[in-house]
Amino acid sequence: DTKLKIFSLESNHPLADEIAKHVGLSLGKSSVKRFSDGEIQINIEESIRGCDVFIIQSTSNPVNDHLMELLIMIDALKRASAVTINVVMPYYGYARQDRKARSREPITAKLVANLLETAGADRVIALDLHAPQIQGFFDIPIDHLMGEPILSEYFLNKKDIDLDSLVIVSPDHGGVTRARKMADRLKAPIAIIDKRRPKPNVAEVMNIVGDINGKTAIIIDDIIDTAGTISIAAQALIDKGANEVYACCTHPVLSGPAFERITDSAIKELVVTNSINLPQEGRPSKIVQLSVAQLLAQAIVRIYEQESVSSLFD
Amino acid sequence: DTKLKIFSLESNHPLADEIAKHVGLSLGKSSVKRFSDGEIQINIEESIRGCDVFIIQSTSNPVNDHLMELLIMIDALKRASAVTINVVMPYYGYARQDRKARSREPITAKLVANLLETAGADRVIALDLHAPQIQGFFDIPIDHLMGEPILSEYFLNKKDIDLDSLVIVSPDHGGVTRARKMADRLKAPIAIIDKRRPKPNVAEVMNIVGDINGKTAIIIDDIIDTAGTISIAAQALIDKGANEVYACCTHPVLSGPAFERITDSAIKELVVTNSINLPQEGRPSKIVQLSVAQLLAQAIVRIYEQESVSSLFD
Ligand SMILES: Nc1ncnc2c1ncn2[C@@H]1O[C@H](COP(=O)(O)O)[C@@H](O)[C@H]1O
Ligand SMILES: Nc1ncnc2c1ncn2[C@@H]1O[C@H](COP(=O)(O)O)[C@@H](O)[C@H]1O
Repeated sequence: DTKLKIFSLESNHPLADEIAKHVGLSLGKSSVKRFSDGEIQINIEESIRGCDVFIIQSTSNPVNDHLMELLIMIDALKRASAVTINVVMPYYGYARQDRKARSREPITAKLVANLLETAGADRVIALDLHAPQIQGFFDIPIDHLMGEPILSEYFLNKKDIDLDSLVIVSPDHGGVTRARKMADRLKAPIAIIDKRRPKPNVAEVMNIVGDINGKTAIIIDDIIDTAGTISIAAQALIDKGANEVYACCTHPVLSGPAFERITDSAIKELVVTNSINLPQEGRPSKIVQLSVAQLLAQAIVRIYEQESVSSLFD
Repeated sequence: DTKLKIFSLESNHPLADEIAKHVGLSLGKSSVKRFSDGEIQINIEESIRGCDVFIIQSTSNPVNDHLMELLIMIDALKRASAVTINVVMPYYGYARQDRKARSREPITAKLVANLLETAGADRVIALDLHAPQIQGFFDIPIDHLMGEPILSEYFLNKKDIDLDSLVIVSPDHGGVTRARKMADRLKAPIAIIDKRRPKPNVAEVMNIVGDINGKTAIIIDDIIDTAGTISIAAQALIDKGANEVYACCTHPVLSGPAFERITDSAIKELVVTNSINLPQEGRPSKIVQLSVAQLLAQAIVRIYEQESVSSLFD
């Protein structure tokens, strides 16, 4: 008989605390420190021999530090005789480098998969990978959970929007499947933003495919990073007759000018999950953060009990 | 027939430039940029198909960023059909985490070896690994060069020291082999600093084994990090009758309070190599930096020409 232990690394302590509470466990005792020269020093302060261990770590910014913490922790757990090492990655960094778009590009999302396996991971639990194909980068089992149901649920229960006038908007062609799922759940039509550049060096045109006139638009994406696209898309929707615009995504990367852009944008509310820990400072008040803790806790318990997790998949 | 190309990553451009000059080549065109969220983006701007590629990168502070640059570069080169990928690591970060000293510790030096192999490295050229056993962490060929001959050469040619009154000092028992080599080359005796803690929670005593009275002492180490030990050792040597104290090492990590401590110490001159690029700002004037560029250039050319590098080993 194995024991279940959950450890948190440094990227997202609040989420790890919440997950542990849902599972009904205390987090395992460990610490991540830095030597004077910046090298990571990990201490695992309790025995994990004979345990199924789950590590909670998003490889969010600073991605290289968070990734090395994870790899070193896996190495330490493996050498300390953990029975299985399960990596819960609410946000999978480098996921956008998932193919060779130009000559001599790396495929860093695949490199990261290889690094995790080499370090000794037995299983990965991920949330909304930028491309579902990244699952195929692993030779170990990977469970791929979705943020969309949590985002949809929020809008379904929202008192102050008219569910009968909704339209779900995909900000690009790559996101149509996700928008379709949300639209099904909210019983709404979809629209697609069809960006094109009429000539080289001419600004992109945001053409909208679908009827948005007089409607409440909800843009859904997997990642919002600098918030450039989403801000322009929101304005385009308003300009073309949408009543009001909400935006939502699973992963609030929100780097660089994102906070300012969101504040200044036509977006009424930005709904995100806590897959990435957001700083309080400067955070726009129009951001609503929903928790994926219960979803991840359920996945952890089912994997530990060797039950199927597939019913959690949408 | 293959072609030789040398690329530099971000840790040590001056050294890479020097190496390329010694080899008689221009560095390969590549760039390392950051996306807004901190993820590394590498562009290789010339074909490397059919080439034997050498990458110059020290995994010095910030170690995790420098290591990820290296892994991503290796991945990109592999996918772009390099014939061989040779990693020149003048400084190998995480080398001090080379064994389990306590329960549940990682062995990060071994993890790093595995990561390099997984990414696709075919060969590693290293300089003064903290422990020579780290060579055994690799299943690919590794060439292990030494800084000691370069340091010794400097003192041999130094006009203002009396070569007949030298003593070479190892700052601990682990460094005696290195001190012995320098002593042989400089035809000098050795001494060893024998630290011991008489009782728990009592300050360490620096006992000196060997005759240093009236002599010019040269302390030799592989890494000087915070410069705590070396400063105390220098004072102990002076207190016990040494005439003057020089210190030298291959890898000037020099983190945290190191610059101040060196300035304030009894050390007359600190001789280091350029395996790690040192900032100009705040650098004590008593630091002398010697170049390992020619040594590394020779190793690169011999490996490329498929000649033996063993004559470079000491
Ligand atoms: N961290 C990043 N930030 C911004 N762009 C990225 C990042 N990583 C990859 N990309 C680029 O984003 C594109 C992939 O995004 P997508 O087309 O949405 O899959 C590629 O052109 C990548 O070069
Ligand atoms: N980056 C580092 N800075 C300071 N100490 C370290 C570092 N990495 C490892 N160590 C510690 O240094 C010791 C190994 O040094 P040594 O005994 O000289 O081989 C171990 O106790 C490690 O925990």
